[in-house]
Amino acid sequence: MKKKAGTDKPWGGRFTEKTAPAAETFSASVHFDMRLYRYDIAGSRAHAKMLAKTGLLSGAELEQILGGLMEIESEIASNTFVFRSELEDIHMNIEKTLVEKVGQAGEKLHTARSRNDQVALDMRLYLRDESQHLIALLADLQKGFVALAREYMGVMMPGYTHLQRAQPVLLSHHLLAYYEMFSRDKARLNDCLKRINVLPLGSGALAGTSLPIDRDFVARELGFTAVSANSMDAVSDRDFMVEFLAACGLIQIHLSRFSEELVLWASQEFNFVEIADRFCTGSSIMPQKKNPDMPELIRGKSGRVVGNLMALLTVLKGLPMSYNRDLQEDKEPVFDSVDTVSQSLAVMVELLSGLSFNREILLHATQEGFITATDLAEYLVRKNIPFRQAHAIVGQAVAYCIANGKELTDLTLEELQVFSAAIAEEVFEVLSVEGSVNSRTASGGTAGTAVMLALEKAETDLGI
Amino acid sequence: MKKKAGTDKPWGGRFTEKTAPAAETFSASVHFDMRLYRYDIAGSRAHAKMLAKTGLLSGAELEQILGGLMEIESEIASNTFVFRSELEDIHMNIEKTLVEKVGQAGEKLHTARSRNDQVALDMRLYLRDESQHLIALLADLQKGFVALAREYMGVMMPGYTHLQRAQPVLLSHHLLAYYEMFSRDKARLNDCLKRINVLPLGSGALAGTSLPIDRDFVARELGFTAVSANSMDAVSDRDFMVEFLAACGLIQIHLSRFSEELVLWASQEFNFVEIADRFCTGSSIMPQKKNPDMPELIRGKSGRVVGNLMALLTVLKGLPMSYNRDLQEDKEPVFDSVDTVSQSLAVMVELLSGLSFNREILLHATQEGFITATDLAEYLVRKNIPFRQAHAIVGQAVAYCIANGKELTDLTLEELQVFSAAIAEEVFEVLSVEGSVNSRTASGGTAGTAVMLALEKAETDLGI
Amino acid sequence: MKKKAGTDKPWGGRFTEKTAPAAETFSASVHFDMRLYRYDIAGSRAHAKMLAKTGLLSGAELEQILGGLMEIESEIASNTFVFRSELEDIHMNIEKTLVEKVGQAGEKLHTARSRNDQVALDMRLYLRDESQHLIALLADLQKGFVALAREYMGVMMPGYTHLQRAQPVLLSHHLLAYYEMFSRDKARLNDCLKRINVLPLGSGALAGTSLPIDRDFVARELGFTAVSANSMDAVSDRDFMVEFLAACGLIQIHLSRFSEELVLWASQEFNFVEIADRFCTGSSIMPQKKNPDMPELIRGKSGRVVGNLMALLTVLKGLPMSYNRDLQEDKEPVFDSVDTVSQSLAVMVELLSGLSFNREILLHATQEGFITATDLAEYLVRKNIPFRQAHAIVGQAVAYCIANGKELTDLTLEELQVFSAAIAEEVFEVLSVEGSVNSRTASGGTAGTAVMLALEKAETDLGI
Amino acid sequence: MKKKAGTDKPWGGRFTEKTAPAAETFSASVHFDMRLYRYDIAGSRAHAKMLAKTGLLSGAELEQILGGLMEIESEIASNTFVFRSELEDIHMNIEKTLVEKVGQAGEKLHTARSRNDQVALDMRLYLRDESQHLIALLADLQKGFVALAREYMGVMMPGYTHLQRAQPVLLSHHLLAYYEMFSRDKARLNDCLKRINVLPLGSGALAGTSLPIDRDFVARELGFTAVSANSMDAVSDRDFMVEFLAACGLIQIHLSRFSEELVLWASQEFNFVEIADRFCTGSSIMPQKKNPDMPELIRGKSGRVVGNLMALLTVLKGLPMSYNRDLQEDKEPVFDSVDTVSQSLAVMVELLSGLSFNREILLHATQEGFITATDLAEYLVRKNIPFRQAHAIVGQAVAYCIANGKELTDLTLEELQVFSAAIAEEVFEVLSVEGSVNSRTASGGTAGTAVMLALEKAETDLGI
Repeated sequence: MKKKAGTDKPWGGRFTEKTAPAAETFSASVHFDMRLYRYDIAGSRAHAKMLAKTGLLSGAELEQILGGLMEIESEIASNTFVFRSELEDIHMNIEKTLVEKVGQAGEKLHTARSRNDQVALDMRLYLRDESQHLIALLADLQKGFVALAREYMGVMMPGYTHLQRAQPVLLSHHLLAYYEMFSRDKARLNDCLKRINVLPLGSGALAGTSLPIDRDFVARELGFTAVSANSMDAVSDRDFMVEFLAACGLIQIHLSRFSEELVLWASQEFNFVEIADRFCTGSSIMPQKKNPDMPELIRGKSGRVVGNLMALLTVLKGLPMSYNRDLQEDKEPVFDSVDTVSQSLAVMVELLSGLSFNREILLHATQEGFITATDLAEYLVRKNIPFRQAHAIVGQAVAYCIANGKELTDLTLEELQVFSAAIAEEVFEVLSVEGSVNSRTASGGTAGTAVMLALEKAETDLGI
Repeated sequence: MKKKAGTDKPWGGRFTEKTAPAAETFSASVHFDMRLYRYDIAGSRAHAKMLAKTGLLSGAELEQILGGLMEIESEIASNTFVFRSELEDIHMNIEKTLVEKVGQAGEKLHTARSRNDQVALDMRLYLRDESQHLIALLADLQKGFVALAREYMGVMMPGYTHLQRAQPVLLSHHLLAYYEMFSRDKARLNDCLKRINVLPLGSGALAGTSLPIDRDFVARELGFTAVSANSMDAVSDRDFMVEFLAACGLIQIHLSRFSEELVLWASQEFNFVEIADRFCTGSSIMPQKKNPDMPELIRGKSGRVVGNLMALLTVLKGLPMSYNRDLQEDKEPVFDSVDTVSQSLAVMVELLSGLSFNREILLHATQEGFITATDLAEYLVRKNIPFRQAHAIVGQAVAYCIANGKELTDLTLEELQVFSAAIAEEVFEVLSVEGSVNSRTASGGTAGTAVMLALEKAETDLGI
Repeated sequence: MKKKAGTDKPWGGRFTEKTAPAAETFSASVHFDMRLYRYDIAGSRAHAKMLAKTGLLSGAELEQILGGLMEIESEIASNTFVFRSELEDIHMNIEKTLVEKVGQAGEKLHTARSRNDQVALDMRLYLRDESQHLIALLADLQKGFVALAREYMGVMMPGYTHLQRAQPVLLSHHLLAYYEMFSRDKARLNDCLKRINVLPLGSGALAGTSLPIDRDFVARELGFTAVSANSMDAVSDRDFMVEFLAACGLIQIHLSRFSEELVLWASQEFNFVEIADRFCTGSSIMPQKKNPDMPELIRGKSGRVVGNLMALLTVLKGLPMSYNRDLQEDKEPVFDSVDTVSQSLAVMVELLSGLSFNREILLHATQEGFITATDLAEYLVRKNIPFRQAHAIVGQAVAYCIANGKELTDLTLEELQVFSAAIAEEVFEVLSVEGSVNSRTASGGTAGTAVMLALEKAETDLGI
Repeated sequence: MKKKAGTDKPWGGRFTEKTAPAAETFSASVHFDMRLYRYDIAGSRAHAKMLAKTGLLSGAELEQILGGLMEIESEIASNTFVFRSELEDIHMNIEKTLVEKVGQAGEKLHTARSRNDQVALDMRLYLRDESQHLIALLADLQKGFVALAREYMGVMMPGYTHLQRAQPVLLSHHLLAYYEMFSRDKARLNDCLKRINVLPLGSGALAGTSLPIDRDFVARELGFTAVSANSMDAVSDRDFMVEFLAACGLIQIHLSRFSEELVLWASQEFNFVEIADRFCTGSSIMPQKKNPDMPELIRGKSGRVVGNLMALLTVLKGLPMSYNRDLQEDKEPVFDSVDTVSQSLAVMVELLSGLSFNREILLHATQEGFITATDLAEYLVRKNIPFRQAHAIVGQAVAYCIANGKELTDLTLEELQVFSAAIAEEVFEVLSVEGSVNSRTASGGTAGTAVMLALEKAETDLGI
């Protein structure tokens, strides 16, 4: 056998030069993919058991490998493992150390496996965990909204369109709108999990393997519900990451919308809510400032989450089959979105518990701005005036009020009847904020009865 | 009653100035939302029936409305309807014309409805249809790949990683990788449909309505499987559009990957495939050129589909509750992605039928580049040499070949045995391309048996 | 000479099939690139003159061509030109019609030219015009801000950070912040113009031409300041479009920021500004609503402008040299951003003229929220108390005020001196809003003197 | 004086709760903004000198501050500085340590300054350096292309459009196309520098300062060419970062295009270039593989650079004046793009030096595919045949060749004259690859003379 060539990389056989230092640094991924170590080891464990089952490893070799992997796992967990960037990635760091620990058995671990299907496996195991973690955080956040909705049940406020006061609603109704958004986010992640939870191992570098393997065994060991159907697809498929990043994008966009509302509501002009001091910071120059930093940061972080989605889509555009090194660029966007979204959710959960709504101010804000004008129109409809005419009549009444500096509730019955003879005494109940809110009893509406039903359903669904 | 104010808009009651022409042009949407007319009319029809059922319309009024809507629908379909941009959008164009046709009954149609829930309805009906249309096109495309896979069953070619020849595979295996991608695209659209297929009508402007309505009736009429649970969420929810745009993004990215391969394969250097003349164009200056324009355009169109997704995410970022006019910017990105993706799929379906693969050249390309080196390594593993050692042995054999201008198959048994004494006569079958391909029999692998199973399953799933 | 092949395309010589209808529709661009007709004709005119100058056309042929082009231009301008999508693009529509009009001379026009350099030329001429148009619109917008700044000179309002009242400022100072942003936008477009204003013609399809041409002559004819230096680069360079789209992105982001402020200010809670009725719309259901639709739409349109930038970057990613058909996808994003940004600017210019600020409410908003706390700290600094100590002292005074429901201005001198003995009588001038504003006299600050200087400089720069 | 409130933050005066740990972690930026320390200290040094000049610091205090800052700078440089995340950011970490070192003088440093203008300053100093660094790297890369262009001067290869062989070009001409792209990148960064190099300090939190400062002095100290004109704009302006990120986007897109070509050229099918082993890696499973990892990674990294641009645009969308905490999200995208682009450039510079082009194969690739068909058409034009007719004639000749398995150069004069009687003996020189290349002598063309001129100009411009 010839002398070994001038490189000590695990793939170095045919190479005559050592990797250039700049190239080594540039291409190394272990500084970020070390985060996958638990999943890499779990995958190797299942793979080794399968190799033993099909006779490619002896029982003794399997024991050695499992023992070595356990040691490595605890070394990494306790920060005593030394990562070597010249070994490129987490896979090679673990395998090389295993060989150093257990010798020849370790050299057999990579049998019937490639880094191409191995890294696909690791990312699927990782995202399966993280998706479930995000679903749990979303549920926590929903619980926070539900708790506020119950605490403030009955409190009225203006509902807005175009940031103009539109119709009075219950604060609880407004809060439960977010419950719905985060429900969809959970549903999307659950759907994404169906496509995450597929075993890619056994695809080799791209073509499968000629060695006798048992993919179903590995799938069962690792809790996968399906086995990938095409080896070339399996090693180049990053769809599940894109789908995950898109789901993260929507979560953070939802958070950005509520954050925007918190920032508005905490302004002196709105003054609808007080955010606990412990979630605010001050100014290095203005001693009186109390700033809603957490919602601002959460809103701002929608940038990176959207950017990460864009990044991966750009990476994938126009790549031919099958694995290309470009795909190494999949990990950091995914890791960053996982971190950003999970931290944002966790902070928002805490933040919700530190909100105090100003009931009086919310109520007061409903007292002006002709906020029950639509109720007057619907009242006229019940008097059999076609809606378009009713709308016009009320529009004129509002114009009259503006010209005379009055609210609709300030008008006398006589004044109102100038606009329509159909108006009678009971109109004043219709024009009241409470009457308005409680009249909207259809499902999904803001009436107390409807909101209470929605709240109870939410509590049941959350297991409260 | 006072004289009407200086504007004839349906909402003009309280306004004292006419809309500025620049503002009218800038905010009008009818030139693009006219595309929704069928859905707007279908929604109005169901809404009117419900209003009649709950007594808000008489039977006669319902008949008038349904008749008027039918007339309008056929006028639009036959291009005889005159759209008026001063009426802003498709909803007002239809309603105003209806009033002109049927009088007072028409003025009742908007009872218990707002444009906010109406446009949400229209977009959901539209995307329900378009999602199903895309799913059908994806199935057509899959049939195209399956037909090619069957036609070329047995043809061998190099499988690539890093655009380097890696291991021999069946062309059919390569093609079926795309079958898998487009399967996931269908699954994603089907999941998205669950969140599209929810009735928003009955949410009013944001708070529901005080009028007696029957949302379940409307849902049944329109084939919705669920009714939105929160009116404020329902009028501001664009999640289903983002999710749809993200699914479109992945479809187009998949198309971009296959397009890249077609462009490569049609080059003189690869020469793997001939694209029918009817899908190519020439040059205005170079008489000999035959350009793969269709795959290039499809690849390029990934830009706009990704851009549309980014556009809508940007629109939504930081919007407070509930409806804001920014949301009008949701439609054009959706329409453009629908058009782009459906046309790209349709063109690709046709294009597949115009491909002729060059069997000889594909096979010839597997004859060099040490493409069965991995098979030699796996052969050594079966001889109980640990994989890492096997890998190193083969690496040295390859280096030897490069230095001597030979392929592995050119080596004599003696030459091979220099690298490992475990190598015996049967190695030459292992080193053959056909032996290599057919050895990868595990599920998802490229062996003829495995690919035939995958092909038959695909045909069954597609109902072929 | 053989019979012509089965296609009548200008490049059809070597083709044996007609283009498939689906492919023809999919690849045609004339429905959007017809917008370039003036530039295409201007380019052809200059090219023809050059061909005549170097002897490739006779004087008579040149006359025929110029006459034919003039006819075509006026036909297109008057909508009597019939565009044929089977001729693919604007270039071929014009050339083919020219040949039909003037015969053989027309067949000579494409001498020493390719559609690859022709379309690059057209886009550069188009964007040169549009960039200058945008610069003019930006100047108009700046004039609007300057006019408002002068009109409201002296009006005080809270300056915000974190949407919390921070320090009092002049409304004119706030408005002039936007003057600065749009100044930078103009500068960026001017820089971009340097890279737009380069002649690509003469690059042929990719390699230049063997015919005797005079590129400098064409550059002079068309007003280009430079001639492209490398033919392969020139036909595939879309940098100037990306740069233009990025500049558009920032303009629209700036507009989105001011729009956000208008939406806030027009809310009942802020009530800082009244937007003229002619720029607002009402609600189809809520008769009292007056919505700030124009700023909302402008804010929302940041989505498409950002999306267009992302679209073109995605198109370009990973494209090899030189021209690829993907590049046809450059035009629609550019056209859409041109339209969106120019319309948004024009609407905003008009909108500015319809703003009425509520001076009293702005002033009143400065009366609370400890808005001059920083002034107190700086006062203490002038008393030689280190800034950090001064900051802490004021922080405690603010905490005392909050606990006792007072403003800093409500405190007596004795109360103030509890926090620092350095405080003396003149502190009350420091704590006044007017005193605060007018003390910030350093350049760029909000003092009346500083703002007046900035305003005068702006007026001078704008030629007012 | 009252007892200090329950927080020890520098802004804690008015606060009654300590910051929640989750909020502290979530909002801390020191782990990434520590990278700015040199710039923060340089800014503080200049600021302190100005404070001393205007009398706000004594000479002794200035000495103490400068001494303290120098100590801190060397502690950070030598990794002995302890960063405290509870101090939030780099600014407070340095200031607090300074106070600990020098006492009361340190408490005066923040006089007439806010973190809002301080961080704007730091980022401008940082990007000024990094832009210049990128410009230098771009020049290095251009030198690499120029060196290759000179080394391979005269080597011919196919020029491509649509990845189809189009016309023969010089390899040097192809390489110099990239020289042009990177020239524009330098120009864009230089233009961006004009907008970076503006002093924001003196803007305070948003309104300027009431203390006597000398902004021009600070500008001179720090080498700024301008002083910001509006304090509210200055603290919220992130345009220069967006512009920088867009410029980075184009650089990386350019790199992605060349990377794509390297990947193609290094494939067995093209085989145009050999990339030095030291820039390639192998496979963990396929012993024969040599993968072009560096260009693949560089191409893939276009994703993150584009994503970073998208991220910042999303952050800025819809933000009201002036500073909002969302803006903290500006730094990581900028840092990541700086790192990615500078590393990619550096690796590409090295990589260029490790390329070996296969002259024979390049030349051979020009021998087929009718690559000189355009030359034949231009030859006919010189014979006074209108270009469109010439194009059609050559198209038919090509079709004839395809049908008969010949190249144009294989045809006899008699065969050629069937297509046009104008063809004469000298046509064979026209049809030769060398004749073709060298005929394209117009500026920007591929003729040896033209390319040599371009090369010499490039060398002069680069100071070679």
